[in-house]
Amino acid sequence: MRIVVLAGGIGGARFLLGARRLPAEVTAIVNTGDDVTLHGLHISPDLDSVMYTLGGAADPERGWGRAGETWAVGSELAAYGAEAPWFSLGDKDIATHLVRTRMLDAGYPLSAVTAALCARWEPGITILPMTDDRVETHAVVTDDEGRRAIHFQEWWVRYRGEIPTDRFVFTGAAEAAPGAGVVEAIAAADAIVIAPSNPVVSIAPILAVPGVRDAIVASRAPVVGVSPIIDGAPVRGMADKCLATLDTEVSAAAVAGLYGPSAEGGLLDGWLVDDSDARAAVEGLPILARPLWMTTPEETEAIIRDGLGLVGVRP
Amino acid sequence: MRIVVLAGGIGGARFLLGARRLPAEVTAIVNTGDDVTLHGLHISPDLDSVMYTLGGAADPERGWGRAGETWAVGSELAAYGAEAPWFSLGDKDIATHLVRTRMLDAGYPLSAVTAALCARWEPGITILPMTDDRVETHAVVTDDEGRRAIHFQEWWVRYRGEIPTDRFVFTGAAEAAPGAGVVEAIAAADAIVIAPSNPVVSIAPILAVPGVRDAIVASRAPVVGVSPIIDGAPVRGMADKCLATLDTEVSAAAVAGLYGPSAEGGLLDGWLVDDSDARAAVEGLPILARPLWMTTPEETEAIIRDGLGLVGVRP
Repeated sequence: MRIVVLAGGIGGARFLLGARRLPAEVTAIVNTGDDVTLHGLHISPDLDSVMYTLGGAADPERGWGRAGETWAVGSELAAYGAEAPWFSLGDKDIATHLVRTRMLDAGYPLSAVTAALCARWEPGITILPMTDDRVETHAVVTDDEGRRAIHFQEWWVRYRGEIPTDRFVFTGAAEAAPGAGVVEAIAAADAIVIAPSNPVVSIAPILAVPGVRDAIVASRAPVVGVSPIIDGAPVRGMADKCLATLDTEVSAAAVAGLYGPSAEGGLLDGWLVDDSDARAAVEGLPILARPLWMTTPEETEAIIRDGLGLVGVRP
Repeated sequence: MRIVVLAGGIGGARFLLGARRLPAEVTAIVNTGDDVTLHGLHISPDLDSVMYTLGGAADPERGWGRAGETWAVGSELAAYGAEAPWFSLGDKDIATHLVRTRMLDAGYPLSAVTAALCARWEPGITILPMTDDRVETHAVVTDDEGRRAIHFQEWWVRYRGEIPTDRFVFTGAAEAAPGAGVVEAIAAADAIVIAPSNPVVSIAPILAVPGVRDAIVASRAPVVGVSPIIDGAPVRGMADKCLATLDTEVSAAAVAGLYGPSAEGGLLDGWLVDDSDARAAVEGLPILARPLWMTTPEETEAIIRDGLGLVGVRP
């Protein structure tokens, strides 16, 4: 059995810890819209969150980056007056970025670089970047400096989303192609799962790469999504601030509405909501309510099994 | 008064600590033949040794790199199986290389990068790379793998010079131009001093850049050199192994012979040797014997003052 998961960073990584427990070949298609180049280093936060977490090397407290991390390089960069001092870069993490940047400069696509890095971390699943092309999520914001587009990382890390925001744009997405293996994995899937990642800035960039949404719609595999909203609030992150840019309500049903039921040309054949949202309803979409807190990989596995069951798949 | 010093790395840096004490504008023209690109980082060991030492940030025990250094990035790079695990790269040091590499990639010449880095370190002298072009010192060696050229860093750090060596070549030197400001500094100098750096792999690469030797010969400034050999042995480093490739004796007089007396078309107007080499003699070259151990910056200043005095310069 083959399962494809669309995933963002930290929440996606935690979700994949559960998916990995299934008796199935799991392929994660991971958002790269958060990728940013700083100090000449190509940084892929979501790919790294997934890779480090599944490799047992992520910091469990902080949620991102490496366990046992140190910060010497970053503090020296700041002493030189280098750019973006608000973006913390750990020493161990920088080694990953050096290897990635060097391979990219040598002409390897991001998918090949990711596979090479994963040879060390042995994540137990296949991790595919959504695209090998450059796509960057930018936030269109307005403040004292006027209306302008800033990189998603600046919006997220520097401003913590506390800046008037019109919308997010996925720069480069229109010209991007699905990453190596992405369309093939979707076509071969027995089930497709949308992780409870941020629908606006983690899942939407993946779907914005031309060919990805079409491949999902064309696939014979049923698609089940897991709500990132529990009882009107995001489980983590700033999905509420992101949803506001779409004038979308912060609710499990509203997020399902963004993806849409397959019967109406959307993606979803089923939608999992938390018990607290048991009354959520979307016309034409089977919904199952159960606890959605990913407290352990075992519990997360149970969540996914229930989701798969909702769309008729038994791994 | 303007003094130009030709210098290599650690010994040159220590020498410049003394030169800086003179009531003079000091310009160091520094070897870049040791420069190496590893992990996509442009590393300039000699420039950094001079910059860190004069900036008060060098590790006094180790002789190279930063005081209080840590090694997280390097050990992670090794875990990824990255190249050249024999070349230790400190975390603080890597920040310098990141800034340098980024500026070079943006099109700034190495001289401008060096000036930018020095804005932080305030070395108190002007530090000029010998060239803004790429020059790499390679060693032609022969072992079980056959006859081949290896980068100087591999020869020095990995093999510690313990490999049969035919000669050193300064790859790229023939096509290189003197670095920004180098010829101008030489032309404006009141005295030119050759530091007691390795004559074969520190000073020779500087002189191999077309235009540098001619500028020194054409300059009205007298040239005094300080012997890197004391009592038949190098003060530090592997000048003995390097001299062997030139079939040159390991002696203060033999090194003077490499530079040559100005009266015979060479560079030197005077040569300082240690008291233990008081009997050293080179036809047509004024030689002064005095203690040459650079025990303190004050003592090093006294050495330089005696050298300048030998060629009639009183700062």
